[in-house]
Amino acid sequence: MRTTAVDHLAEPHHDTGPSYLWGRRAPGAGLTARLWVPAAHDPERVVLRQVVDGEPVITMMERVARTPAGSWWHGPVRLVNPVNRYRFLLISPTGADPYLWYHAAGLSDHDVPDSTDFQVLACDPAPKWVHDAVCYQVFPDRFAYRMAPAGREAPPWARRRDWLDEPPAAGPQTSTAWYGGDLEGIIDHLEWLERLHVTVVYLTPVFPAASVHRYDATSFEDVDQLLGGTEALARLSAALHARGMRLVLDLTTNHTGVTHEWFTAASADAGAVEAGFYHFEHHPDRYASWLDVPSLPKLDHRSPELRERLVRGPSSVTARWLAPPVSADGWRTDVANMTGRHGQVDLAHEVAADMRATMDQVEQDTGRRLWLVAEHGHDASGDLTGSGWHGTMNYVGFTRPLWAWLSDPDPADGLTWLGIPMPVPHLDAAQVVRGVRQYTAHLPASAVAASMNLLCSHDTPRLRTVVRSRELQLLAATALFTAPGVPTVFAGDELGATGVTGEHSRTTIPWATGPDGAPAADEVADTGSWGPVDRVVLERYRHLAAMRAGSTALRHGGLRWVHAEGDIVAWTRTHPDGDVLVVLARGPAGTLRLPLAALGAGGVESIECFDALSARIDIAAKDPHVPGEPAQGAGELVVTAAGCGALVAVLQPDPTAAGGR
Amino acid sequence: MRTTAVDHLAEPHHDTGPSYLWGRRAPGAGLTARLWVPAAHDPERVVLRQVVDGEPVITMMERVARTPAGSWWHGPVRLVNPVNRYRFLLISPTGADPYLWYHAAGLSDHDVPDSTDFQVLACDPAPKWVHDAVCYQVFPDRFAYRMAPAGREAPPWARRRDWLDEPPAAGPQTSTAWYGGDLEGIIDHLEWLERLHVTVVYLTPVFPAASVHRYDATSFEDVDQLLGGTEALARLSAALHARGMRLVLDLTTNHTGVTHEWFTAASADAGAVEAGFYHFEHHPDRYASWLDVPSLPKLDHRSPELRERLVRGPSSVTARWLAPPVSADGWRTDVANMTGRHGQVDLAHEVAADMRATMDQVEQDTGRRLWLVAEHGHDASGDLTGSGWHGTMNYVGFTRPLWAWLSDPDPADGLTWLGIPMPVPHLDAAQVVRGVRQYTAHLPASAVAASMNLLCSHDTPRLRTVVRSRELQLLAATALFTAPGVPTVFAGDELGATGVTGEHSRTTIPWATGPDGAPAADEVADTGSWGPVDRVVLERYRHLAAMRAGSTALRHGGLRWVHAEGDIVAWTRTHPDGDVLVVLARGPAGTLRLPLAALGAGGVESIECFDALSARIDIAAKDPHVPGEPAQGAGELVVTAAGCGALVAVLQPDPTAAGGR
Repeated sequence: MRTTAVDHLAEPHHDTGPSYLWGRRAPGAGLTARLWVPAAHDPERVVLRQVVDGEPVITMMERVARTPAGSWWHGPVRLVNPVNRYRFLLISPTGADPYLWYHAAGLSDHDVPDSTDFQVLACDPAPKWVHDAVCYQVFPDRFAYRMAPAGREAPPWARRRDWLDEPPAAGPQTSTAWYGGDLEGIIDHLEWLERLHVTVVYLTPVFPAASVHRYDATSFEDVDQLLGGTEALARLSAALHARGMRLVLDLTTNHTGVTHEWFTAASADAGAVEAGFYHFEHHPDRYASWLDVPSLPKLDHRSPELRERLVRGPSSVTARWLAPPVSADGWRTDVANMTGRHGQVDLAHEVAADMRATMDQVEQDTGRRLWLVAEHGHDASGDLTGSGWHGTMNYVGFTRPLWAWLSDPDPADGLTWLGIPMPVPHLDAAQVVRGVRQYTAHLPASAVAASMNLLCSHDTPRLRTVVRSRELQLLAATALFTAPGVPTVFAGDELGATGVTGEHSRTTIPWATGPDGAPAADEVADTGSWGPVDRVVLERYRHLAAMRAGSTALRHGGLRWVHAEGDIVAWTRTHPDGDVLVVLARGPAGTLRLPLAALGAGGVESIECFDALSARIDIAAKDPHVPGEPAQGAGELVVTAAGCGALVAVLQPDPTAAGGR
Repeated sequence: MRTTAVDHLAEPHHDTGPSYLWGRRAPGAGLTARLWVPAAHDPERVVLRQVVDGEPVITMMERVARTPAGSWWHGPVRLVNPVNRYRFLLISPTGADPYLWYHAAGLSDHDVPDSTDFQVLACDPAPKWVHDAVCYQVFPDRFAYRMAPAGREAPPWARRRDWLDEPPAAGPQTSTAWYGGDLEGIIDHLEWLERLHVTVVYLTPVFPAASVHRYDATSFEDVDQLLGGTEALARLSAALHARGMRLVLDLTTNHTGVTHEWFTAASADAGAVEAGFYHFEHHPDRYASWLDVPSLPKLDHRSPELRERLVRGPSSVTARWLAPPVSADGWRTDVANMTGRHGQVDLAHEVAADMRATMDQVEQDTGRRLWLVAEHGHDASGDLTGSGWHGTMNYVGFTRPLWAWLSDPDPADGLTWLGIPMPVPHLDAAQVVRGVRQYTAHLPASAVAASMNLLCSHDTPRLRTVVRSRELQLLAATALFTAPGVPTVFAGDELGATGVTGEHSRTTIPWATGPDGAPAADEVADTGSWGPVDRVVLERYRHLAAMRAGSTALRHGGLRWVHAEGDIVAWTRTHPDGDVLVVLARGPAGTLRLPLAALGAGGVESIECFDALSARIDIAAKDPHVPGEPAQGAGELVVTAAGCGALVAVLQPDPTAAGGR
């Protein structure tokens, strides 16, 4: 169980780059699977094994290019079924490993289950704009206001707080602490978002409710008047669209509030159609609810009428908010993992497929492409099979491993491990990369790329509190903006905000005040509710977001693991136009030598080092992955980690492998 | 990738013994999960994480017993959903491994996907008689005849062969080589089956067809007259039942023959209801078929009328043959993995659920419990989710790994690797156990136990040809009769029959002739079509089957891996009444020392050694799994493998752990 260095460059690599990510695919179409095999393996034959209509089908792959470092093999993947699964067998009768399966979780010298086969979907993945996106999560009560809360009437359930008060961390007041942010307030700060290269704003719920988080909706018909109503949301959407940005809303498909008009009707009359919307065990007093919280009665999607009202067809809630006047660009679905699941009933895939079909129809009607993201806090692989969610909030494949690698929480903060009653564990790079590989091996690459990557959210402690240092936050942000998946910034993170619980993390933004006394569009004060604003972090976020915006490989590339060991991890984002290498070190980690030929690179176009990392190119170095004498043009990128820092290098394609990649 | 010794005794063990195998389970009921943790881990806390209604739920486990070798922990598993998944987290803040997940595939020091969570089904598993069964596979044309073929009229497609002719190995004549076995012939040899402790006879198809294998049915209405017709099958069933044996039949749900009455009707009239039973791309000449073989048109289960006729309800083919006069006890479903799957259509689970529901109704009507087994040649985990097949023909979890461990084929035989164009690979014990663990980790224990384990079948080369020695066949048979799953003997294996392809393996049984010239009920001649009969193998099969029949642990026990390394593998079948230890060596493998305390044993009740294995008990040995001084009563079972052989030992339960196991 102890850590060991993992030289991933010694492994084969199957590239699931841009051709796997989007584009409408007709059944019967195909893809060419490209497999890089390092010279150390040099198989005699490579088999592509695909399960077609439930039966394994064998194809022999063809070696199309050979360099001193290895070979590229090509073989056909057929898009026959909704999910198409395949893996590779390296047959080397005279080799040290005569029988090796290469699959999405790595190499195995024995038969393996199909669960880690590579997957490619035959249905429509998320649109290209999702893959280009930087997403920004806003908790509407806490971002900004135009109508000063002081002069407004608070609803009966609310307890008024001053804008720079620290949010409560626990207890019943967390859901009633009203700061008075509104939607017009967001419109006033679009320049802030633009300077952060944000392209998508994701709002947690905006429907009327009996709490500040609004996951206990009382209606889905209108936007909460506290936020400015439907008209304000339409204005926000128009303002975003005018700047080329998009808007994603948040829908609770699993439950409503106990004050929802449907539940009121259901409780009043056991014969009402709405009574079938919920799981009454005994009407009206016993019913299923979210985690047994009685104020959040669980919806029963066996009711066709509920499905029509909520998710199915042009008059559903799902369709209505994507249509004018609001014209939102997608939905984030709350607790999608639980939606439609209750005992022997499991309609989760049907609900997801309904939402997707409804959105597909809106797409056809409007010509606008839309995004459908599931909240899912654990293994979502069973729910990402193509006909439903495009992706998830990727806590499992991104947030958790990154926290485990970078965690250094203060025990006094009492942080727990995202649902498990223990402190955040502290794992090394080899461990977390094993975990990430195993998990993402269960998903199509297109679903990973269409998921939100998060360092934290309104449901978790702030990353800054988990890692407790600027340097580690900068490192985490580098991972966020260079990994596959949509970088999603929880508003306030870019200022170094802290928070020990999800509720405590719902900080306000300390906008600076202009000469007229109104909040400035693009300036913040020096101090937030959590303490000093960290302008170094802000500048780095802006820089990293710009870097991603300028790099096709970072936005659309495949992922190849390069190295993982203790305090250092490296990967490339692969793209036919040239890969981008990313190296992260959480502390002093010595020197990492990366042979260019094994990386598939012909040279290095540019190197940017952050913080304590430095790099040089050793042109005469011998590549340990290449048998025999050094080839001409061999060389190494030598990365030295004197402390916490990162490196991003743009690589030139290896011209000798042109036919393969 | 090189082999290393794997001391599985150093790992935790979650026991999925008899309480996981059968019994009707009401939703809301629960099980107590029992977890053994060796003393080397000694966690401070153990978490049981179960996914309930799509959401992880955390429970703290309780330490209920402690011995010098380790501890037993108990925690509740709730039977809420059709498939209930859970795993364990060992939290040891001051230990070398502070964060360890234990799941069905082993230990991980990082987060893991849910795919290898332990699974327990809330619906009905297979009946108890399945878990008690020894199954015997008969290919009806080749087992025995009462009506001498010489005096009978062969059908037009058939080419008559003499009973002791070698079956053709390849080419079109494989399906037309008619030997003339019949169902009355089987009745004449029930004593043979009884002496082999057979409790279930599985017949490959008996419906009329245009081949000797009959997977190209022309009708499902009657039994082929060549075999004696429906009356003969009814007599065979009655004769089996009279001896306490059961009968399993074979149904092709994926396709029919091109001469089937449904296909004839469908081809004649595009408007016929039967035209909807098939996937016509262009009527009548282009249609989907099994592996593109035009004589086997693929059924389209989107047709409700087809489903009614074949699998759904009391007048379906499925129900009819389970009812009098034949009263069969179950179905083996041909190419279940492909059934209902074609392009964007995937009705495989619906077809399986239909068959199961139909059979459940027969069970309620008759009071007889039934078995439903899927043919499935690759990873079946996605299809064993409870509402369909009880189990599969377990090629992946049993046949393939055993072949890979024991293979020594003659290159001249040209054997290929079960669907992959390469010779059978030769792997060591650690490799194959890794593969078996990973695969079975994807399945409920009840599905593994209700699956047919096979050394070979009518679709594969004979095991004897794969391993090429009596000793290795005896070893394989020991695995067959001691592993979880229903030992299934392909008729002729018990005589040492050989075969280089599935067709070539369809050997006849060389029955001895009695004084009246008729075949003897329970005697065979010295020579079969393949060469000499191996009576040593026959006696060992009878002995091993008797051993299993006499051991509750071998029939109903859980599985704990003990050791795997190169030429030696060991496991225990765990049962509250006492475990049974199995050690197999494929060659000289030195000495294996197995500490009794770590095995959870208080002593050894009996030891039986086969062939080149020997054993003794070293009562004073120090258990390396127990920290500190040797405990009283410690000791080791010392197994020496001078060559190929096996050991089966009955262990006494450790009384100090009585509260835990």
